[in-house]
Amino acid sequence: MNESKDFMELAIDLAEVNIIKQDGGPFGAVVVKDDVIVGKGSNHVTLNNDPTAHAEIEAIRDACKTLNTFNLEGCEIYASCEPCPMCLGAIYWSRIGKLYYGATKDDASKADFDDSFIYKEFELSKEQRSIPSVQLMRDKAIKVFQDWIDSENKIPY
Amino acid sequence: MNESKDFMELAIDLAEVNIIKQDGGPFGAVVVKDDVIVGKGSNHVTLNNDPTAHAEIEAIRDACKTLNTFNLEGCEIYASCEPCPMCLGAIYWSRIGKLYYGATKDDASKADFDDSFIYKEFELSKEQRSIPSVQLMRDKAIKVFQDWIDSENKIPY
Repeated sequence: MNESKDFMELAIDLAEVNIIKQDGGPFGAVVVKDDVIVGKGSNHVTLNNDPTAHAEIEAIRDACKTLNTFNLEGCEIYASCEPCPMCLGAIYWSRIGKLYYGATKDDASKADFDDSFIYKEFELSKEQRSIPSVQLMRDKAIKVFQDWIDSENKIPY
Repeated sequence: MNESKDFMELAIDLAEVNIIKQDGGPFGAVVVKDDVIVGKGSNHVTLNNDPTAHAEIEAIRDACKTLNTFNLEGCEIYASCEPCPMCLGAIYWSRIGKLYYGATKDDASKADFDDSFIYKEFELSKEQRSIPSVQLMRDKAIKVFQDWIDSENKIPY
């Protein structure tokens, strides 16, 4: 039977292969259900011109395709590095139940990746963040939520 | 010339249309560069079986396709609702410079979306979060970062 360290080894190998193939940053991830790999991902930011194509996001999307669902309850994710806030958010939304990671976000920072900076931004209030944010038209925006609540044929997720 | 409120109006309209078409949750987003719309997105989680297909992620991916780049410096994003942590992380990685939002994350919670819960999880240490996380094979994982640093043909992003 496969063990946790085998899955992590594959996640790290995907990161290493990514450097060799020049497909993107040195990150890999694997999604596992009942000890079977259901999704794999590597960083494809530069290959696909997609800043959201981190390894974990790619692995989650791949697993959802394999399992034909948007809900990965009962799955685990193995990431070669501690997920950035975007990917940690994706893990929550996917309902994945457990996270294994190799390097830490501080290790990633030493290789010049911004994860730590972004984590620090999350600790600040909206007013203190480096990206200015402005609220507009809240009343119209809230009305849409009421229309969602009232809509009879919605698919909850 | 288009104004901020026109772009926000479109983002909110995309959210409303999404309910009517039953394509996904009530969220829309628009990416703008030099007063021109370069990307649009609606929530497609249920339509695409993709828990990462939030409106902002879709709009960022669309804008990157339009502009043929992974770097949206000089762009602004208009989101019908304050971005969740996943989407806020994506905004940072995309280098978008300014965020406009309509409803707040607490408004989203009242319509039964988990944004506030996930934001609260981010405030906790790894050990306190509802998703257990385990570190494995850090030494092997760090070696990949060194290989990245040493690699001569990498594309930084």
